[in-house]
Amino acid sequence: MGPITGATMEVSSTFDNMTGLTHDRPVQTSSFCQQFSSVDGAGNYDVVNNVVIPTPGAPDPRAQNSLRQSWEMNYQEAAIYLQEGENNDKFFTHPRNAHALSAYLFAHNHLFYVMELLTAVLLMLLSLSEAPAVPFLRLDVYVHATLELLALVMVAFELCMKLRWLGFHTFIRHKRTMVKTCVLFIQFIEAIVVLVRQTSHLRVTRALRPIFLVDCRYCGAVRRNLRQIFQSLPPFIDILLLLLFFMVIFAILGFCLFSANSADPYFSTLENSIVSLFVLLTTANFPDVMMPAYSKNRWSCIFFIVYLSIELYFIMNLLLAVVFDTFNGVEKMKFKSLLLHKRSAIEHAFQLLVSRQRPDGVCLKQFDGLMRFYRPRMTPQDRFLTFKALNHSGATMLSLQDFYKFYEVIGLKWKARRSGEHWFDDLPRTAFLIFKGINLLVKSKAFQYAMYLVVAINGIWILVETNMLNGSSSLLTVGVSWTRVVPWSYIIFLTIYGIEVLLKITGLGPLTYFSSGWNLFDFSVTVFAFLGLIALAFDMEPFYFIVVLRPLQLLRLFKIKQRYRNVLDTMFELFPRMASLGLTLIIFYYSFAIVGMEFFADVVYPNCCNTSTVAQSYRQINVTIGNRTMLEEGYYYLNNFNNILSSFVTLFELTVVNNWYITMEGVTSQTTHWSRLYFMTFYIVTMVRDCVCWLCMCIK
Amino acid sequence: MGPITGATMEVSSTFDNMTGLTHDRPVQTSSFCQQFSSVDGAGNYDVVNNVVIPTPGAPDPRAQNSLRQSWEMNYQEAAIYLQEGENNDKFFTHPRNAHALSAYLFAHNHLFYVMELLTAVLLMLLSLSEAPAVPFLRLDVYVHATLELLALVMVAFELCMKLRWLGFHTFIRHKRTMVKTCVLFIQFIEAIVVLVRQTSHLRVTRALRPIFLVDCRYCGAVRRNLRQIFQSLPPFIDILLLLLFFMVIFAILGFCLFSANSADPYFSTLENSIVSLFVLLTTANFPDVMMPAYSKNRWSCIFFIVYLSIELYFIMNLLLAVVFDTFNGVEKMKFKSLLLHKRSAIEHAFQLLVSRQRPDGVCLKQFDGLMRFYRPRMTPQDRFLTFKALNHSGATMLSLQDFYKFYEVIGLKWKARRSGEHWFDDLPRTAFLIFKGINLLVKSKAFQYAMYLVVAINGIWILVETNMLNGSSSLLTVGVSWTRVVPWSYIIFLTIYGIEVLLKITGLGPLTYFSSGWNLFDFSVTVFAFLGLIALAFDMEPFYFIVVLRPLQLLRLFKIKQRYRNVLDTMFELFPRMASLGLTLIIFYYSFAIVGMEFFADVVYPNCCNTSTVAQSYRQINVTIGNRTMLEEGYYYLNNFNNILSSFVTLFELTVVNNWYITMEGVTSQTTHWSRLYFMTFYIVTMVRDCVCWLCMCIK
Repeated sequence: MGPITGATMEVSSTFDNMTGLTHDRPVQTSSFCQQFSSVDGAGNYDVVNNVVIPTPGAPDPRAQNSLRQSWEMNYQEAAIYLQEGENNDKFFTHPRNAHALSAYLFAHNHLFYVMELLTAVLLMLLSLSEAPAVPFLRLDVYVHATLELLALVMVAFELCMKLRWLGFHTFIRHKRTMVKTCVLFIQFIEAIVVLVRQTSHLRVTRALRPIFLVDCRYCGAVRRNLRQIFQSLPPFIDILLLLLFFMVIFAILGFCLFSANSADPYFSTLENSIVSLFVLLTTANFPDVMMPAYSKNRWSCIFFIVYLSIELYFIMNLLLAVVFDTFNGVEKMKFKSLLLHKRSAIEHAFQLLVSRQRPDGVCLKQFDGLMRFYRPRMTPQDRFLTFKALNHSGATMLSLQDFYKFYEVIGLKWKARRSGEHWFDDLPRTAFLIFKGINLLVKSKAFQYAMYLVVAINGIWILVETNMLNGSSSLLTVGVSWTRVVPWSYIIFLTIYGIEVLLKITGLGPLTYFSSGWNLFDFSVTVFAFLGLIALAFDMEPFYFIVVLRPLQLLRLFKIKQRYRNVLDTMFELFPRMASLGLTLIIFYYSFAIVGMEFFADVVYPNCCNTSTVAQSYRQINVTIGNRTMLEEGYYYLNNFNNILSSFVTLFELTVVNNWYITMEGVTSQTTHWSRLYFMTFYIVTMVRDCVCWLCMCIK
Repeated sequence: MGPITGATMEVSSTFDNMTGLTHDRPVQTSSFCQQFSSVDGAGNYDVVNNVVIPTPGAPDPRAQNSLRQSWEMNYQEAAIYLQEGENNDKFFTHPRNAHALSAYLFAHNHLFYVMELLTAVLLMLLSLSEAPAVPFLRLDVYVHATLELLALVMVAFELCMKLRWLGFHTFIRHKRTMVKTCVLFIQFIEAIVVLVRQTSHLRVTRALRPIFLVDCRYCGAVRRNLRQIFQSLPPFIDILLLLLFFMVIFAILGFCLFSANSADPYFSTLENSIVSLFVLLTTANFPDVMMPAYSKNRWSCIFFIVYLSIELYFIMNLLLAVVFDTFNGVEKMKFKSLLLHKRSAIEHAFQLLVSRQRPDGVCLKQFDGLMRFYRPRMTPQDRFLTFKALNHSGATMLSLQDFYKFYEVIGLKWKARRSGEHWFDDLPRTAFLIFKGINLLVKSKAFQYAMYLVVAINGIWILVETNMLNGSSSLLTVGVSWTRVVPWSYIIFLTIYGIEVLLKITGLGPLTYFSSGWNLFDFSVTVFAFLGLIALAFDMEPFYFIVVLRPLQLLRLFKIKQRYRNVLDTMFELFPRMASLGLTLIIFYYSFAIVGMEFFADVVYPNCCNTSTVAQSYRQINVTIGNRTMLEEGYYYLNNFNNILSSFVTLFELTVVNNWYITMEGVTSQTTHWSRLYFMTFYIVTMVRDCVCWLCMCIK
């Protein structure tokens, strides 16, 4: 531990050397300390004393005290500026006085954030138990309405804190907060109405609940995604209109050409014609929509080929290209403005940290004070190292130029260099040699390739084994036996993997071993497999699925090739971005699910839609073909909006697009033609989202 | 015409001034003129005479003559170098001697190119008439085999010319030509076998015919596309393997989980399981493949959602990102190497154009000689202007630095500045005033917006009118009447459009009017509409479709907004690129169509596939539901490979992806399981193509 102690000592000694300017007054006084300055009259007080510890005979202890408080206020405000710069919060929401500061501090800590998040999640989860509820989660009206009121009161409390921090004038100007307040107000009234009437009315406004989630501090990435989506909208809508325009033209043409054919239900009326071509835009009804016309006249396929070529392969590509351009421009602008915002935050903080005597630099004392507020958990040693890293010029103070690098340097982690190379270096000689041997073994190419070979054999084994199961007589028994009876080969392979994991852990040391994502993957897959075996031994039903995960072992094979390692690393890198996109998706789903449930709950059931063109998909009957009778089941009645979980599955199916029109037509035949608007809107939203999602991936 | 004459005069006078160096010898002698130099012994001859026209008493008319020929050869070779640079032909195919030159010249003119193209197209079109022929184009075996032999002889002749030009050694090294030769050889033998046996055998090699088309000079863009596709393949294949690997893992999992359910045909065997998940990758069977499992246990949807999320939304995006990177890199490299190739071509040409006395510059005489070979149709005046445009330094000669800009400057067009502003400026006063009035009218905003209003009203009119047709009793009559009886409103609108076109033409003058793409569009739509009316008046059946095109008039509306004008201009710009991509697509289609026809011709027909899971789509029977009997027609038997036109339609349907598995399963149930390989390969090829197509659009 030698070097670390040395560093600490150096820190403290330098600290003493560099704190000479402590008693100088700051150039700019924090807006928070106006009350102090008025009380103490310290506004026109000049300190000339330069010693470190206030000696007896210092001019005035009260002034000294007030000066220290004034500096502390400055540190805090500078830290707040830097936080605002980091989080891209606009400066007009900066707290203006001491009251605002306390509200600001209350509203800016993780406890508050977690409360905010939990309230929002609770509100969203309530949909599981409300009116068209998931069967096993159904709650009485007064229970869920009371829960909702409770959550809304929490939100109201959070908003009050925000009002106190921002002041009424800024509060009104902050758009997101105002929207949130309005939604809160409506929800409040509705919740009370529900509680009074003891029954849910048509509550489409529940679709607005995700706003509370989006506003959470932790959902910054989601807000960013939403902003990107909204910024890409104008060019998107323009091209969409072009797309729809061509669609209508072709619908008129199609109606003229094909409505004479009585066997063609797709073009029988102008409305059908438009709907058919909209669905064709998504390719979901493709060869079918062409078939009646095609069977009558082979050349009619030209109509469809031209339509698809123009719409799908030309305008859609154009749409992507145009949105790509806009998006690229917006991203560049955003990057620039973000950088400028950060610089301006740094400048604000710098002004608060410089003293009257040396107005062009921040010394260590001030920097240390700042960091105590900005990163309370940072050790003094790390604070010193950060200061040193910023201090390029080598002078005792940080210039503004040095300080501009603040956000880059603050991300660095400081680690004491370890003296030994292996974890077993300090062990006795015999043990050292053994571990050294293991270390060399697991690091050798031969060991690696031997393991790849084992995995490959395992893969082939699994394929062959599964294929042989095909031959068994009763599929039902096979399905059961596969998860219950463990083949001996599986135990052998698992033992080999277990030994590999143990060897690697002992050879590399646990710290080095677990610092690699691949090793973590190996480890968890192997441990899960062992857990599965144990679960099997004790006959614990719900853990069977772990045994089923055994083919995941094969994923190790992808370590062989460099490109796959890169690709999978990229996958891990992209994961946070994908997660935030997924969350954005869920928010969209949620809103649409609520609307869907309010309007379409319980409208589809087996044999419900015999009058529609998609009757077959909802049919559940005995059909006689020739002299055979069989049960034909079109399972589409399962794609319904009966509760929020079913709605999510249905919306996922609509996202995948294929056959989405069957769900649409089924619901439409049971409700009104206007229902189609819901499904078409959802498709267009999906399109926007996909488009933006793709661009996010590509541009980074 | 004043300035033009002036320019011509200036040209001729400068010409005389600058040709002083004509009788100097070139530094480097063209490789073509070795025979002349050996005959005339001009290799060591030094000319000192500096006059323009050989005066009596010039040293040696024979040497003079040989010198001129030597220069001419140099001009020609320099022009060939520049052409090679322009077309990105490698220099190792550069003609080496006079024999090669004559073959080169024979093989590099538009007549030869057209012959090449026609032969290739003829060979491809033969598939229309061969064995599974389009009914009305069927030819006897000896006819189409003779035609094929004829075309192949033509190709062989072209190859002979190439052999003569390249020389045997280079010919062997040129990969594309060698492949072409091999294919030609095989096709030759097969054609003879067909002619002898008087019946077609299994001729899968016909799928190679597009090679002849790809090799044509005019199909350079297609070759470029194919090269891009092949260069994007390695990263593509890597990620594809990852995709397929996950697919197999999930197939094993799915088999274990769902094979116990006897109502679930999708996972009954491991093979079915893999096929189902491959189709699911294309989303073509989406909610259906989930439904039997979902109806048994609602949580089983998690399996499908996870699978689709990983495969479709994660790995597919990753694939695009990786291919995007590779593609971008390749494009940049290509751009660089193309630039270097052009520079090197210019250097070669420069070396051939400089004379011994002034080895660092090209004077007008030499440049003029070069241009006579490089652009034979260019006027002397344009040649002079090009020289002047290149000559930045203002000296009498072009330095190499000037000459490097050759390809940029050669693309410029020279036009004499017109004195008058309007075409009617020279007319008498009264006519001038009338036309000036019309000119002001058609250029006014009011006129434009009035026209937009008319178009908008027309649009609404058409919609309302079409919608009112819905109400009529017999659809059949309506369909007919719509194309036969012209409503009076249509004639009124058409008259307005006609007047607009006439006003614009007279007001702007035909030249200005037709130079705008939008005006051309207006004009052709209006003219076609009039032609349609005339056709209607004379009751000419096949022209009815022109009347049906009337809604296209509405496209004018898109001129209103700037973005649409830009977008549609982009559409026109992208058109050549899209056309070449389309041609590439057709080449792929062709090869797949031939293979499909050879193996799957006449295998599907109504009620053919009752044993398969997609029986319903091929069924054509009376079904009894309750007490109603109705004809249910699954039209999929129409998607067959019975002739090349049907094959193209079927392949287009496979490209659109939706429900492609129905075609696959139908064919598979009538042939072997290996047929699936054909369809799956086609899907993957489509994927590559789509991917590259997209990238081409985006990167430009």
